[in-house]
Amino acid sequence: MPPSKPDPLSLAFDAARAAGERGEVPIGAVVMRGDEVLAVAGNRTRELKDPTAHAEILAIRAACTALDDERLTGCDLYVTLEPCPMCAAAISFARIRRLYFAASDPKGGGVESGPRLYHQPTCHHAPEVYGGLRASEAGEMLTGFFKQKR
Amino acid sequence: MPPSKPDPLSLAFDAARAAGERGEVPIGAVVMRGDEVLAVAGNRTRELKDPTAHAEILAIRAACTALDDERLTGCDLYVTLEPCPMCAAAISFARIRRLYFAASDPKGGGVESGPRLYHQPTCHHAPEVYGGLRASEAGEMLTGFFKQKR
Repeated sequence: MPPSKPDPLSLAFDAARAAGERGEVPIGAVVMRGDEVLAVAGNRTRELKDPTAHAEILAIRAACTALDDERLTGCDLYVTLEPCPMCAAAISFARIRRLYFAASDPKGGGVESGPRLYHQPTCHHAPEVYGGLRASEAGEMLTGFFKQKR
Repeated sequence: MPPSKPDPLSLAFDAARAAGERGEVPIGAVVMRGDEVLAVAGNRTRELKDPTAHAEILAIRAACTALDDERLTGCDLYVTLEPCPMCAAAISFARIRRLYFAASDPKGGGVESGPRLYHQPTCHHAPEVYGGLRASEAGEMLTGFFKQKR
């Protein structure tokens, strides 16, 4: 039997953990085209001193570079936390097909919380959304990180 | 008398026109710290094949690089069109003090249209907002661009 490939959400969790080890808020994202991993990224806002360097934005930009295309039509994004409004809008602009996320983020999310961007009549493309995957694991990783910071 | 400096909004209009000449949707943005121009950018989504490369995002990233800081506390952003939800959220994350924009964007804006991000209870920092500056000039530039594209 060939070795089984890690699933995309596990890759996102690995990227989140690596971000935490760099002193970043531990969030990770992966862009897939079918079974192909196009991009894996962790949050790098501190390292890059760039408030837009969220895991999803970095993963989308890397996937666009990989495909040499401004749109990721048919691609799926996996992320360990519900995207914020900035990332939710970027996911829409990139024409991501399916969004899978782990923990919900009632304080900062923009998908099922706050502005619920994909439910706005002015949203031109909404991905299919699957939330709450391995949510407690993702929640514990974030809680642990912020506890440690205090 | 010293030569008068161009005002920030005029710089944003110049960047918007330059973007249009490159075949991009003509939108321009400028980040100021007091009288100092920190960054000027036009939309480059097509050139960079990056759906996040809106004028505001590029200007914020360049200004953060210029200041070597993840936050632009006390800085102001001028843009020729009402920011979309992605850019409106990035402006909030960057802690921009004042947002000045020209034309409103009822179809794609996120400040006074659509999700009205700064009015969401989950918005942690809202800039002061001044809209409708030279709005007809900005509107005509965009209308002209889209007419020409057809």
